[in-house]
Amino acid sequence: MRVGILGSGLMGGKLGTIFARAGHDVVFSYARSSEKLKKLAREAEGNARAGTPSEAATDADALLLAVHWSRIDDVLKQAGDLKGKVIVTCSLPMDTGNTKLIVANTSSGAEELAKKVPRAHVVCAFNSVPSEVLFGVYGARRKSTRPSLVYCGDDKRAKEVAAKLIDDAGFDPVDAGPLQIARYTEPFALLVAQLAYEGEGGPELAYRFERFGR
Amino acid sequence: MRVGILGSGLMGGKLGTIFARAGHDVVFSYARSSEKLKKLAREAEGNARAGTPSEAATDADALLLAVHWSRIDDVLKQAGDLKGKVIVTCSLPMDTGNTKLIVANTSSGAEELAKKVPRAHVVCAFNSVPSEVLFGVYGARRKSTRPSLVYCGDDKRAKEVAAKLIDDAGFDPVDAGPLQIARYTEPFALLVAQLAYEGEGGPELAYRFERFGR
Repeated sequence: MRVGILGSGLMGGKLGTIFARAGHDVVFSYARSSEKLKKLAREAEGNARAGTPSEAATDADALLLAVHWSRIDDVLKQAGDLKGKVIVTCSLPMDTGNTKLIVANTSSGAEELAKKVPRAHVVCAFNSVPSEVLFGVYGARRKSTRPSLVYCGDDKRAKEVAAKLIDDAGFDPVDAGPLQIARYTEPFALLVAQLAYEGEGGPELAYRFERFGR
Repeated sequence: MRVGILGSGLMGGKLGTIFARAGHDVVFSYARSSEKLKKLAREAEGNARAGTPSEAATDADALLLAVHWSRIDDVLKQAGDLKGKVIVTCSLPMDTGNTKLIVANTSSGAEELAKKVPRAHVVCAFNSVPSEVLFGVYGARRKSTRPSLVYCGDDKRAKEVAAKLIDDAGFDPVDAGPLQIARYTEPFALLVAQLAYEGEGGPELAYRFERFGR
């Protein structure tokens, strides 16, 4: 697939690298400098290049949205018309100090995003693990017990695209239902962040859902 | 320990049974009928008996609060003075139809509860797994990889008590921080419920946090 990265920071940079290594055609866009984008593309060791958000969006089978919430409007404007596009978002609706969710409970960041791009297909994914664990999970991807990764959305095809990317990144895709479930997955993402950054054992944290018979 | 169960429904009934089997002295209280309480006590196969909420609270080392949110005020009133008591709550602040959280984002059910009983020590735990998985996890408790169970609270001793109960129930206790983190663990509980009851594979669902090196 062709995957456009909108927001090539910690999450976008690492996930784009992983998608490129997994065989996808990746365009990195929207970082602090074009040098950073070029470095990411060079070091991805795959079919990756640097570009503008508009270039990242052109012909993309999936767009990974990985900017800070305060940058959403700007990056969407730069990306241009997103009609029919599959947007996999891992942007959490945090305040500028990254201390708390500013949209939740009766809505979610993913739902607010979907309102901004009504002609695109939004899937909420990849925000429930810290960026620090991504390469470790990708490296261990042939193990029988892979960590889970929840995703939710309202469009079946868009969810299939997201599930493929999650699978390619070494996680077991867990369909959590409609986009409205982002009201739960976004606070869950903050719980994982709390355990990763405030708990003991380091930030390379992932999770796995398992069933136990009675 | 002596454990009082306030609310002997699905969660309270099963957890009380497990605590009794793990060697604790359990008082079941607050169910639809006193017959149900007596049946629970009889079938717990341990040191368990039926009682009133006040009897459950007397001399309790820990109180498990497992009533529907709409019953909180009533059961607290019946329990009497809870000064210095350790309250482990798994009550989620749901509306009467159990469709959504009614307290969240800028607060949590656990924090609201703590305001109601300022002289007690509240720990938020046991709400992030469905009752259907409890016996399965307890039965598998000698396995090396136990499922996780998050808990949070502000009082160190109360958290130690909660961690002991979580451990006794066969889970790996995961300290998620102060009680305020219930703002994340409560929506997480609804995510788990969504996966358990709306997903494929049945409701016997638990989760495990794991670290993956880079």
